[in-house]
Amino acid sequence: MKTVISALAASLAATCVWAQGPELAHDAEYYILKAQHAEQWVQDDAAVDAALAAFRERNGGQPPNIVSVLIDDIGFGEMGIPELNAVRGYETPNINAFSDEAMRMVRMYTEPSCTPTRVAQMTGRLPVRMGMGDTTVDIAGFGLPEDEVTLAEVLKGAGYSTSHVGKWHLGDIAESWAMNQGFDYAQHAIHQQGQLTIFHDDAIREQVSVGIADFDPIYTLDDLFRPDASAMMTVIEGTAEGPIREIRMEAGERWNAAKYDEMNQAFQDKTLDELKRLAAAEKPFFLQYWPMIPLDNTRAGRDGPQSPNGGLYVDKMQLLDQWLGDLFAEIDALGLADNTVVVVMGDNGHFTKYAPQSGFSPMIYKGGKGDTSEGGVRVDAFIRWPGMIEADSLINNIIHVSDLYTTLSRFAGATGFIPTDRLVDGVDQSASILFADEGKGRRDSVIIYSVDKPKAIVKDKLRLNLPAPGESPILAEFYDLYRDTHEKYPVSTEVGAWGGQEFVRILGRHLARKEKYPDTPPAHGVPYEGVENIRPETARAVEAFQIKRASVQQ
Amino acid sequence: MKTVISALAASLAATCVWAQGPELAHDAEYYILKAQHAEQWVQDDAAVDAALAAFRERNGGQPPNIVSVLIDDIGFGEMGIPELNAVRGYETPNINAFSDEAMRMVRMYTEPSCTPTRVAQMTGRLPVRMGMGDTTVDIAGFGLPEDEVTLAEVLKGAGYSTSHVGKWHLGDIAESWAMNQGFDYAQHAIHQQGQLTIFHDDAIREQVSVGIADFDPIYTLDDLFRPDASAMMTVIEGTAEGPIREIRMEAGERWNAAKYDEMNQAFQDKTLDELKRLAAAEKPFFLQYWPMIPLDNTRAGRDGPQSPNGGLYVDKMQLLDQWLGDLFAEIDALGLADNTVVVVMGDNGHFTKYAPQSGFSPMIYKGGKGDTSEGGVRVDAFIRWPGMIEADSLINNIIHVSDLYTTLSRFAGATGFIPTDRLVDGVDQSASILFADEGKGRRDSVIIYSVDKPKAIVKDKLRLNLPAPGESPILAEFYDLYRDTHEKYPVSTEVGAWGGQEFVRILGRHLARKEKYPDTPPAHGVPYEGVENIRPETARAVEAFQIKRASVQQ
Repeated sequence: MKTVISALAASLAATCVWAQGPELAHDAEYYILKAQHAEQWVQDDAAVDAALAAFRERNGGQPPNIVSVLIDDIGFGEMGIPELNAVRGYETPNINAFSDEAMRMVRMYTEPSCTPTRVAQMTGRLPVRMGMGDTTVDIAGFGLPEDEVTLAEVLKGAGYSTSHVGKWHLGDIAESWAMNQGFDYAQHAIHQQGQLTIFHDDAIREQVSVGIADFDPIYTLDDLFRPDASAMMTVIEGTAEGPIREIRMEAGERWNAAKYDEMNQAFQDKTLDELKRLAAAEKPFFLQYWPMIPLDNTRAGRDGPQSPNGGLYVDKMQLLDQWLGDLFAEIDALGLADNTVVVVMGDNGHFTKYAPQSGFSPMIYKGGKGDTSEGGVRVDAFIRWPGMIEADSLINNIIHVSDLYTTLSRFAGATGFIPTDRLVDGVDQSASILFADEGKGRRDSVIIYSVDKPKAIVKDKLRLNLPAPGESPILAEFYDLYRDTHEKYPVSTEVGAWGGQEFVRILGRHLARKEKYPDTPPAHGVPYEGVENIRPETARAVEAFQIKRASVQQ
Repeated sequence: MKTVISALAASLAATCVWAQGPELAHDAEYYILKAQHAEQWVQDDAAVDAALAAFRERNGGQPPNIVSVLIDDIGFGEMGIPELNAVRGYETPNINAFSDEAMRMVRMYTEPSCTPTRVAQMTGRLPVRMGMGDTTVDIAGFGLPEDEVTLAEVLKGAGYSTSHVGKWHLGDIAESWAMNQGFDYAQHAIHQQGQLTIFHDDAIREQVSVGIADFDPIYTLDDLFRPDASAMMTVIEGTAEGPIREIRMEAGERWNAAKYDEMNQAFQDKTLDELKRLAAAEKPFFLQYWPMIPLDNTRAGRDGPQSPNGGLYVDKMQLLDQWLGDLFAEIDALGLADNTVVVVMGDNGHFTKYAPQSGFSPMIYKGGKGDTSEGGVRVDAFIRWPGMIEADSLINNIIHVSDLYTTLSRFAGATGFIPTDRLVDGVDQSASILFADEGKGRRDSVIIYSVDKPKAIVKDKLRLNLPAPGESPILAEFYDLYRDTHEKYPVSTEVGAWGGQEFVRILGRHLARKEKYPDTPPAHGVPYEGVENIRPETARAVEAFQIKRASVQQ
């Protein structure tokens, strides 16, 4: 059988320059599936290549454009299902209409919070591989290493123009920023909404923040203790060739809710501008839009509730729905609909810390952002490609956000630019997505980390929550996710010994694979270095950070 | 204004014999809404009457047939939403197709368990009104009083033929049975699935039951302690004129899983037979089908899992979906689709006691069967009437299961047969349903009882869980149901004093109204009396019951 497969693979490689390219190094479970399905996969790959080749032929020889929208903290069931809109008391008509034209990836797994999910989508790797599993709020002096090869770099290799607008949150050091990680152009916030919606004066007035302004100066020996949203760098803009400048703040200016609104509107406007600019050029493009809303934490100076739900995030979700409606309309107006893959999804579950003010709380799965339960890592996820991906369809096989890296690269004919010197967690899900065939997935499990610790394993419909260190594995709880979406009724006796043993072995193989491909640390550096126009207060905040960093080395 | 309304009402009553009929006595909250919307309601009623009159004109002068399917223990989100089918790992294609032709009543509230929900649907009244709030499993010697006027009796008054097949569970005394409560023909179980799926030998073998067979006869002084499913009466059949006979068991026979399957298949077959028989007659008809499945508790002698979910109830839900598909197809084949109102809904939330074996657990709302939280009383509910009710629509106003009594009566032109000498909790929701207009509902609240105690009040999107007796009302917890479907994040401080005060007043008005319309007890009697062919073991079980009943009077 092996010879047949090798022969087939060789003949494919010879006839099809767009084919998968060199073999990627994946995690152990991939090879167990491959050992069982290799022959089928060769056939499927040939069919995928044929479909992609036919598309390119129709498209003047070009692969599709890619527009990727990643929405903050939006759990499963909030978009695309009118019945659940009614349950929640708000509406997302534009996204629902989009979902009618798209495929829902029902079992899309993300990481439990912003940074790690975005790292996984950008690098195709679990964030633990390069120490990026943590989500920081304040100045931190670390970020995504420059030797990571992002999706933007892969696509650029294949001739794409690349642009990024909105959130970023992969580090506050220069090498981690989008314009230094493969994007020709980028305009993005450096930190996240902790800074931009909680640490400022409006939020203090609305009782969102505690301890920032309400302190006794007499007893305050440490002036470096409290964060100052206005001193932290906000939004930067630049190109791969430089320069990089902060664009939202003048020296001495205070950040506030109005500036948050302006920034978000500017991201939206810039996204549409970039779309038009990229569409006018010859090359295929990759446009990434990571909106900061729906997250918000104040009503300062704005209108009251905009929906029967009335939650702060929900109201902003309705606004985002309008904005995405405008984006979809612009894609249509520019004649891009048929040759553009559009991905819309959440980055992790709801931020339960802000329930019920946000208007969101976990609905179908247990837990939310930060949790490693299903509610932390299950999100709404849609992919549209008219004529190539079945409209109004769904697939229920397990997909991890890192699989978008490999799969979109495949769609772009760019797989050959994915590095083969490191472990890539993302697998190629082209066959299951293009043929709307759940059986053609190349993954049936995910290992769910919190920061740098594996916390749960999902395989098939079963989920094992790993016991804490020192706790007996016999106490580990199994859940049947089809039967119990809230992980409330453990089925240990039903799943029995084979399940426990086998899950321990899955973890063992995952860890053993790290011996060949060890985890590495993130990049460390001086925050904001390389920005041309650092404000004096920002420089002081960096100085404060450096004093804190140095304190452990005294 | 009052004069204008009276004049309008008088003119309507004069011109339209099918109109609402005499004024019903409702609960207090109804009159608060009426005081604000009376003028609009008069207009809406005129529009409803016009729509119904137009329908009858098209339909040879006849009102529509009514087919009502009430499914046991099926929570919200299990039917009609393919995305959530995928979440659960099973499929209900026929019900989903039906839902595409129907309206979803998103906020359909039932009672928390089988008997009270069925009482409310049959009588239009809260079960507490006649002491029917409890759900019994074993022989109990009480039931729905004969002086309750059921929906069947109301429709019969307006000239309908009436038939009931399946579950009943409104009492084990003769006056409570369907053939004595307005149904021309009935074939129904007397008790419920506790008897028919748990108390028998197969269930004992599969470890579903504990304590029924595994006891030490030496220490067993009380031979009357344990229930015997085979001795209890199972299924009866008869007509309004009698006789009534038990049809599923011969003397000495043992109940088992195979007989449960036979019984369910027979209910399905009989439903289709009755549909054909009723369709062939001249009169409009009311056919009620209350399947016993999806509930089941053994695999004895049957095939293994039928779905990726594989739960016992879920597998039977797929079977029921096929059966309902056959029912819908037969309605089409008989040419009844356009002149038949079809209602399909659950009777209460999932039976969490059998999670995860059942394959169901609460998905979107907190809690299940027996709980007064939303998950106990929120169900999937669809109503189809082609050309009259908007296909593939939803309304999100609050509807209580008792409203079906009044609303279906209105559709049938039978409102005049609803008694006016008692409080009717069901309100007429015709306008909101026929015009797919959420603003035209006539209810914005429900009071949720457990047996005979009010436990929660839902008004608008707010929910107050009433404090336990002796507990400070200040501790009562409010929930915003749009923001928090799992009642996890109380919003006391947000809703504040007005909410608490006003909810206490709602309860006060509800209780004050009972002074004019006091609750009455259920009917008591000798179990099974009036059945022609009582088996000897059944007679002994009744004797045992009488000994127990008499014990408190010694």
